[in-house]
Amino acid sequence: MIKLAHGGGGQLTVELIEQVILPSLKSTQNPAGLTDAATLDGFDGKLAFTTDSYVIQPLEFPGGDIGELAVFGTVNDLAVAGAKPKALSMGLILEEGLEIALLKRVLESAGKAAQQAGVAIVTGDTKVVEHGGVDGIIINTAGIGAMIPEAELGFDRIAEGDVIILSGALGEHGLAVMSQREGLSFTAELESDCAAINCLTESLLAELGSDVKFMRDPTRSGLAATLVEVSEASGFDVELDETAIPLNKTARAAAEMLGLDLLSVANEGKLVAIVTSETAQRAVEILQREKIAAKAAVVGRICSSSDAPIVEMITSIGGRRIVQMPYGEELPRIC
Amino acid sequence: MIKLAHGGGGQLTVELIEQVILPSLKSTQNPAGLTDAATLDGFDGKLAFTTDSYVIQPLEFPGGDIGELAVFGTVNDLAVAGAKPKALSMGLILEEGLEIALLKRVLESAGKAAQQAGVAIVTGDTKVVEHGGVDGIIINTAGIGAMIPEAELGFDRIAEGDVIILSGALGEHGLAVMSQREGLSFTAELESDCAAINCLTESLLAELGSDVKFMRDPTRSGLAATLVEVSEASGFDVELDETAIPLNKTARAAAEMLGLDLLSVANEGKLVAIVTSETAQRAVEILQREKIAAKAAVVGRICSSSDAPIVEMITSIGGRRIVQMPYGEELPRIC
Repeated sequence: MIKLAHGGGGQLTVELIEQVILPSLKSTQNPAGLTDAATLDGFDGKLAFTTDSYVIQPLEFPGGDIGELAVFGTVNDLAVAGAKPKALSMGLILEEGLEIALLKRVLESAGKAAQQAGVAIVTGDTKVVEHGGVDGIIINTAGIGAMIPEAELGFDRIAEGDVIILSGALGEHGLAVMSQREGLSFTAELESDCAAINCLTESLLAELGSDVKFMRDPTRSGLAATLVEVSEASGFDVELDETAIPLNKTARAAAEMLGLDLLSVANEGKLVAIVTSETAQRAVEILQREKIAAKAAVVGRICSSSDAPIVEMITSIGGRRIVQMPYGEELPRIC
Repeated sequence: MIKLAHGGGGQLTVELIEQVILPSLKSTQNPAGLTDAATLDGFDGKLAFTTDSYVIQPLEFPGGDIGELAVFGTVNDLAVAGAKPKALSMGLILEEGLEIALLKRVLESAGKAAQQAGVAIVTGDTKVVEHGGVDGIIINTAGIGAMIPEAELGFDRIAEGDVIILSGALGEHGLAVMSQREGLSFTAELESDCAAINCLTESLLAELGSDVKFMRDPTRSGLAATLVEVSEASGFDVELDETAIPLNKTARAAAEMLGLDLLSVANEGKLVAIVTSETAQRAVEILQREKIAAKAAVVGRICSSSDAPIVEMITSIGGRRIVQMPYGEELPRIC
């Protein structure tokens, strides 16, 4: 059981770090352990630097947990920025009374996730707050990546005729978490898509170089937020084909039961990439080599520029629906 | 008033970032704003990377607030590792119902602190949890610094005869916060020593190079934890002179009223440096140039090596007292 004193920087903190945190994270290739400040070598070019805090409830959910999510989420932010993720920090905020067995499971999961993604967790911090001060565990991860020289990404590189590729079905993360919270059960298990996508981004950049114009992982507020941001920042209308979007039928059923729109639900292991039309087919093939992107498809295109650019979805019955930026979070504490 | 939807990644999140967060942090020289992942240039040598989460209560205290603390704390961790702090990330976890005016004050304070310390806040993240899910604001900062080539720091460099220098009086941060919580008032105002100490560490390294053996900022569990760690990791006995330790009489009075030991109370703007005996006097003079280290002094020395090394304090009446690693936190949520 975690005590307040575990966060005090004294003997109990040392014991927690040495007996629980470091052994659980053992797979992260950090020979020196978690130090106050890690020293890193070999960054000769540009760096990418990012951070995210994870406040998800429940801490363990179908297909993942907060530890895995905290690693993959930050890895993916670096990946879509065109960087090769290298090192993560991990700040733990623990609630007094937390079961140490749960903490161990979460950290072991974070360690495995880091190993899968090829990053090392190199520095950390642990705070403990009184019972009720947080819900179990909050994790912040920050990440450093080495910018891939071939990457030339940005809203300003998007042009008319470029195509939008999505690496798989939408909404699995948000709906798996919400279904568990609401106590819904489905004949087929609905699991979070929580995964590292740096394998996808690195392959695309290595093989297609500057033909890749923009990448993003559609997390909070989903594909809708990503495409509205693309449209507003680039000044181009965007068209989305509903029938082309890869579908998870269980996720769709869950979305219908919960009254949610798949387009605005969070994903944690999906990639949106905008590439030139000439390379679209190759891009899809490159993505499909990886199991997590087996259903990758061209789902839309960049249309003409406009003073008031919009995102429109061509629906399955041939109608047109305007896709809007969600106002706020329909699903709190989803990541 | 902060709403849950402010953390949802949709339109309200964009408004919060553009109307509150970025303008408040304006002094941090981040022309591109806070991006999902920042791109940084010019790291040709080694990097230092660190993180800390700040859960202090109350959020505003005599001499500082959580925003300033979150910047200085991480800057100082980089500084004592022998790095020049360059860039910070800032992860905000906000409570639904938080007053936006308070958030603005805290962020403006963080922005000013970053400017003072010469670092840029380059990337961030904002989460909102329901009322009661956290107490107002939790901040995580991670930091990247460029290792100073002259720095050769480490427990393994400490040798018999080296001296221990402390940059000022002990306990001001912890006692200022506790006094406010306990409703104590003193004739003289007791203020936190919250400050950036990279000016101190960079001057020492520039002028004394490898004669500086080890540096640490004595935060949680104070000077006691720092020196016990030094003793255990280096294998040398450590001797501390009580009469040589710079004194803040108000802090001492507060410690006596609260039944706390100044040696184990947290500081947020103090430096412990271990240097060769030949350079000790110069080191003190270098530190004293800065106002925050006007009372810098030699406070102890590294004695002979031992199988069971201990830290002893020679008290003001000439006795000897063993200084132990505090068991846990006497002062929860002090940083």
